[in-house]
Amino acid sequence: MKFRRSERLIDMTNYLLDHPRQLVSLTFFSERYGSAKSSISEDLGIIKETFEQRGIGTLQTVPGAAGGVKFFVKVPKEEARPFVEELCELIATPDRLLPGGYLYLTDILGDPAIVQKAGRLLASAYADTKIDVVMTVATKGIPLAYAVASQLNVPVVIVRRDSKVTEGSTVSINYVSGSTKRIQTMLLSKRSIEEGSKVLIVDDFMKAGGTVNGMVSLLEEFNASVAGIAVLVEAEKTEERLVDEYLSLIKLSDVDVKEKRISVSEGNYFSKY
Amino acid sequence: MKFRRSERLIDMTNYLLDHPRQLVSLTFFSERYGSAKSSISEDLGIIKETFEQRGIGTLQTVPGAAGGVKFFVKVPKEEARPFVEELCELIATPDRLLPGGYLYLTDILGDPAIVQKAGRLLASAYADTKIDVVMTVATKGIPLAYAVASQLNVPVVIVRRDSKVTEGSTVSINYVSGSTKRIQTMLLSKRSIEEGSKVLIVDDFMKAGGTVNGMVSLLEEFNASVAGIAVLVEAEKTEERLVDEYLSLIKLSDVDVKEKRISVSEGNYFSKY
Repeated sequence: MKFRRSERLIDMTNYLLDHPRQLVSLTFFSERYGSAKSSISEDLGIIKETFEQRGIGTLQTVPGAAGGVKFFVKVPKEEARPFVEELCELIATPDRLLPGGYLYLTDILGDPAIVQKAGRLLASAYADTKIDVVMTVATKGIPLAYAVASQLNVPVVIVRRDSKVTEGSTVSINYVSGSTKRIQTMLLSKRSIEEGSKVLIVDDFMKAGGTVNGMVSLLEEFNASVAGIAVLVEAEKTEERLVDEYLSLIKLSDVDVKEKRISVSEGNYFSKY
Repeated sequence: MKFRRSERLIDMTNYLLDHPRQLVSLTFFSERYGSAKSSISEDLGIIKETFEQRGIGTLQTVPGAAGGVKFFVKVPKEEARPFVEELCELIATPDRLLPGGYLYLTDILGDPAIVQKAGRLLASAYADTKIDVVMTVATKGIPLAYAVASQLNVPVVIVRRDSKVTEGSTVSINYVSGSTKRIQTMLLSKRSIEEGSKVLIVDDFMKAGGTVNGMVSLLEEFNASVAGIAVLVEAEKTEERLVDEYLSLIKLSDVDVKEKRISVSEGNYFSKY
């Protein structure tokens, strides 16, 4: 069965979007559509151009006999900015204020479209970084971690606060929460991370960074290293930040419970990445 | 700026895949590309045909002035079956056996590609069902719930076992676990579900169904109703099942700890849906 160019373009677009960071050979596409490699090459040229023009991402060509193409998500800053601005407005609604100056973000984190878009932005920043696995801590960071990981084509491991029989044997550490100064425990299934892995830590919220710091310590137990730290929201006003190198989409600069005012602005994403 | 057909097809494919179950007007596309509506109509015809042929999904045309197209994910059974078979093989590996006859599934649930595919299969089954929200319980069901919800274009709400200040006020219930017969608590943020909502319950694993049953009771407190129940794996050998109507991709029929044998087969997905 032969395919017309228009059909190939549609199916290839879907295939590439669904297989980010994976090398797809020209032979694979050529056999899939019963088309000459020269036609496939032309198709890929059109796709690459359109992807870049529309801010979808880019195709990287790997030359040689074992070559092919790889799709990378790359959201341009001019598209990322309005999204982050909208998110800031959404977060700044006064009825999000909870007792103690906490913010209700559950609805935002519960919106798959927002989470996926945020995941694409963060994944764009790590497109050229070697990453083997994304790590997060239960519960709130999980959706964002999957959104990032699916674009980076790596697995997710979830650190827990409590032990479950279904995790098998675990490695646990005690750590001090940065903001409450309490001692807490976190644990991770022993078989979840291989030695030497490069790990991207993803979380929804970072205050002083105690939890993230705990995850960094946990990685040492696995002889794994931190490839990056990415959070959706960072709280700015913290006496001392335990973590230096990180990427944040949004910065929570001030929460005034009395005046019911929440001040948010864009995070360091646009200046750091 | 004018766009050629090939560029339109690539960008429209990406746009539609990214906006499932959302009505997109011809005017929107026509303005996006500076093209006549008649050309857009033709484009959509080609996309619909290719989507259906390649098992990606389908486009539904809504006629009239306020009309447009909607993309629905629809994985055909002949494509779903090999995926489920592979998953069965993956689960049947003896080294997944944990003390007590539990199974280690963390790596499978940690693979975004598997989770997304499973989510697409389950979402396909509910393409024609009215669903307002997907509900799951922390922690393991979360990624699958998001994978389903993103295809259905609805938010996710997460039931928790412990109370967190960031959830605001909550509604909690006590329920009896089906397999261990212990009394447990689950709670959900008060503002997370609107009255009258139609809810799809999604979880990774169902034994006797106590947890799912708990979620059903919790929904009654919100005056919301169950639109469906979908799980990745069901355990077959349970004395009495507390839940009748559900969809499962995989059935765990027997776990023989002594012989280190795990028997898995396809779930009721293929017969029920």
